[in-house]
Parts: sequence; C-alpha cells; structure tokens
Amino acid sequence: MMVRSFVSSVVNNPIATDVREFLASCRTLIDAELDRLIPKESESPQRVHSAIRWSVFAGGKRFRPALLIAVGQTFGAPPDHLLRTACALELIHTYSLIHDDLPSMDDDDLRRGRATCHVKFDEATAILAGDALQALAFQTIAEDEKLAPDLRVKLISEVARASGVPEGMVAGQALDLEAESRTVDGDELETIHHRKTGALIRAAARCGAMIPNANEDELEAITAYATNLGLLFQITDDLLDVTATVEDLGKTPGKDARAQKATFPALYGIEATRAQLKSVHTAARSALERIEGETQLLQSIADFILQRQV
Amino acid sequence: MMVRSFVSSVVNNPIATDVREFLASCRTLIDAELDRLIPKESESPQRVHSAIRWSVFAGGKRFRPALLIAVGQTFGAPPDHLLRTACALELIHTYSLIHDDLPSMDDDDLRRGRATCHVKFDEATAILAGDALQALAFQTIAEDEKLAPDLRVKLISEVARASGVPEGMVAGQALDLEAESRTVDGDELETIHHRKTGALIRAAARCGAMIPNANEDELEAITAYATNLGLLFQITDDLLDVTATVEDLGKTPGKDARAQKATFPALYGIEATRAQLKSVHTAARSALERIEGETQLLQSIADFILQRQV
Repeated sequence: MMVRSFVSSVVNNPIATDVREFLASCRTLIDAELDRLIPKESESPQRVHSAIRWSVFAGGKRFRPALLIAVGQTFGAPPDHLLRTACALELIHTYSLIHDDLPSMDDDDLRRGRATCHVKFDEATAILAGDALQALAFQTIAEDEKLAPDLRVKLISEVARASGVPEGMVAGQALDLEAESRTVDGDELETIHHRKTGALIRAAARCGAMIPNANEDELEAITAYATNLGLLFQITDDLLDVTATVEDLGKTPGKDARAQKATFPALYGIEATRAQLKSVHTAARSALERIEGETQLLQSIADFILQRQV
Repeated sequence: MMVRSFVSSVVNNPIATDVREFLASCRTLIDAELDRLIPKESESPQRVHSAIRWSVFAGGKRFRPALLIAVGQTFGAPPDHLLRTACALELIHTYSLIHDDLPSMDDDDLRRGRATCHVKFDEATAILAGDALQALAFQTIAEDEKLAPDLRVKLISEVARASGVPEGMVAGQALDLEAESRTVDGDELETIHHRKTGALIRAAARCGAMIPNANEDELEAITAYATNLGLLFQITDDLLDVTATVEDLGKTPGKDARAQKATFPALYGIEATRAQLKSVHTAARSALERIEGETQLLQSIADFILQRQV
C-alpha cells in the first residue's frame, strides 16, 4: 500500500523538476523495495544478513537507482517497470563499496559516518556480504516479472558488463590499485574513472532507457549524458576529499592525498579541476539536446551534482 | 573446429558409459569455451586477468559442468545448448574457491598443487578476480543466444539463488565460519553442506534438466539425485582430508581437523562415515529410478564419486 502510493505520486508527477524532491521520493521507494528483496536479520545465517543490511541501509543517496528512474520516466516507462532494476544497481554499488573498503583494498574504517562492514563485523563476513549482494542483484532482474524475458537478459548483460572485466567497475578498481604505486596522466585517470565509477552510472542510465525501449539515437545520447555525469560525480568526489571536513563527508577526508592516489586535483590543481567540472557539466547538458521531448529532470540532476561541491 | 569435433563426439556418443572418458571430453570442451569467455592476460587490466586465468585454469576437474552436460544429455539436449551454462557454473565455483581461500576465510596457501590466487598475486587482486568471475558467469548465461530468453532468465535465477543467501553457497560458507567456534550436530553439518557445496551441484543438475525442458517429476528426481550426489562429494572430501597425503590431494591435508572444522569423520568416526557414504550413494541411484529412459551415465557418475575415496 505504501509502495503503491509512492508509485502513484511519481506517476502523477512524471517530470518532477524539483530534483531534491524527486531524489527523496526515489529514495523512499527504493529503500522500501530493497527491504523486501533482502533477507531479514532474523533469518539464518544471521551474521551475514545483518552485515548486508548494515551496508545497504547505511544512508546511501540512491543516486544510481534515481538516475535509472529519471531516465526511464523521461522515455515514458511506468515506474513499477523501473524499480527492480534500479534496486539491482544499488545492490551492485553496495557490494562494491563493501569490498573496496576492505583492508587489502582501500582500507577504510568509516563510510557515511559509520563503521564500514568489515570493521562492524569482520573481513570474512564483509567479503561474503558483498558476494551475496552481487548474486541478489542479478536474481532481482532475472525474476522481475513486470519485464519481458528478452528485456531482462539485455539488462543483465548490461549490468554484468558494467560490473566486471575488462571494461567494468572491477577493472576500474584493479587499474586504480595498479596506479597507486606510480604516476598516472590525465588520460589514464579518465580511463580509471570511466570504469571504476562511470561504468555503473552509465549502466543505470542505459537500463533506464532500455526498459521503455528508447531508440538507438536516444540510447547514444543518454550514454554521452551519463558518461559526463559520471565524470562530474567523480571530480566533485575528488574535490570534496580535498576541501571537506570529516563531518561534511561522513568519511575520512584527505585519504586520497595521503595514499598518493591519482585524483583530478592532484593532477591539475583545484582551480583547473573546477574549470574541468564546468566543461563536463556543459557536455552532459549538451548531450540531452539530442533527445526530443522534456529532459528538464535530467538537466536538473546534472546541475545538482555540479552544486554538491563544497 | 576443435570445438565442433568435441561437440560431435559427444553427440555421436549420447550416453557415454565410460565416465572417465566422458569427464575428460567434457573437460576439454569446457576448457576451450572458458578460454574464449575470459579476457586474455595481455588485455588490460592485466594483473586481474592473469589472476582469473591462474585460478580458472588450475587443473579443476570441471565436475559441475560435466554434471550439467550429463543431465542435459540424459534428457536429450543438444550439447551446444548446455555449454555456456556449464561454463557459468564453473565460473561461480572458481570465484568461490578464490574467496574461500583468502586469509580471512579458510586461509589456504595451496590448491590443486599450486599457490592459491592471493598467494600468487595479492589479496586485493584475488577479491577482484572473484568478483569479476561472478559477473562473467551471469553475463555468459544472459548472452547465450542458443537459448530462448525465458529459459535464460530461469537459469540465471536458479544459479543466483544457488550462489547467494539465504539458501545458497554464500549462506553455507557463512554458516561454516560461524560453526568453527562451536560444536555442531549432524543435522547442522548437513545444512552447512547442503548450502555450501550442495546448492551449486544441485543447480548444475537442475539447469541440465531445465535446458531440454524436463517435466516437474523429472526435475524433482534430478534434484534428489543431485542432493545425494552433493553429499557424496562432500563426505568423500572430508574423508580424503583425513586419509590422504599432500601429494594425493594437491592441497594441505588434515587442515579440517587442525581448524577443528565440523566434518563427517570428526562427528561420526571414519567407519560410520564410510557407511553413510554407501547409503547416500544408494539414495542417489534410487532417485534415478524415477526417470524413464537411459540413466546409465548419471549412475556411473555416482559410482565414480563413491570410488574416489582413498
């Protein structure tokens, strides 16, 4: 019943221009659906289920699901056709955060203002929680009976390629780790981000377009939009790591610099990075001009990310 | 060309009764297909691709793929309809071995006679290699154009449930880790194995039956057969850990006992465990009696596993 009313509020407001309101309503919708999809903490094996819920319900902004829903709405998809795939993207994103935070990877103790999964539980449980989340993501799309089976297999292929190797998120994380010990140039840094964070953001947008069967030109425009949006997202993240406090960020700032990580500010300096931010934002908005019909919501999302820099 | 000749050798010998010959020809077929599916070591990011290939081509017996192919053949599926899903099962199995061997999990240095993935490479690379293999498994089924899309989504759902929580392989590994610090009884031990190793073996057999569209009764009989086969497999594994040498095993024997792991021999003693082995083997063969038509190959596989005890 609660879900139904959220779905209908989105249906009745198909082009929400207030992006904060849109993001908040997506978040409520996604959180309720994730709660249904994930086993309860009371169910055995309890420790791994608790760990999964600790990380999935850690106050994430649900940006990837919201992007998928925004693109889907833009091309006229009913919201209940978008919900499960949107959740699948969030499950993949959460598994990647859990694994990236592990001691042998980025070794982070704090995420969104609280203990990371392996700190709150233990390393083995964190690895298993991530593994289970990945399986659940693909299960969720495979079992989405609102969508035709031939669409479901296309979505699974899209999400799997965006998650794995050689072009997806795992490849990006591997490149990022390889790059820690040496100097990378701007092109390499873009390649890393294109895969590490860009691939999943692109997949979210592309799935949003595939569900309402957008045509090839529209899919291409959305891909260009999302590629720039991903870069915008990463560059603001890099800037926040330099300029924000632990309180602003909910995680330890300055880590990138201490780890001698390749970042845009480290490579170009803060001012040039801010200029790059604007040009990427312009590119994202230009891509939308190739789409017929109303794209105000997608424009507002690009503006919103630009403004999140502190 | 090489593949075609193997496929046709299986086609021309649809009920191979010599199980060793059958397993060897499956292995060649599967290894060739896995080689096509997995990015080359020369492709970037090289380190993670090398790690994936190190673990996938480590001399595994390809038991799960062979079981899938054997069941599929029994119900008349063309071998080229079985190959990709069979590979997907092996990709999932390999990812689980890589993650289970990690220091925070079972902490194994040796597997199939050589260094485990995190020892040969490093922990971060091993975690990423496992993560990429899981994505590739689902991608492989999703993109298998030999199969109708509605069959592909059923197979993905089956494999995802068998891999994850609350009933799959990850749940089994979590229960196993939880059980390390306390005494478990026989029922708990069966629950652990039912999920940890049983779920994927069952999924392999069930996918093999689903591809040629076996009916409900047949699927139920195959599920019973595979449940007992999984138990047979696990009990022989437990026995080998007690009785074999490092040379026989290609990994460190006696680890279970030292880790005070719950095993069948630890719980019941070696003689009672051998008796249990025989009763599980009988149950596997009895399940096959409910299937009309020739089940000689499946019977031989059960016999073969029984005999692998040293």
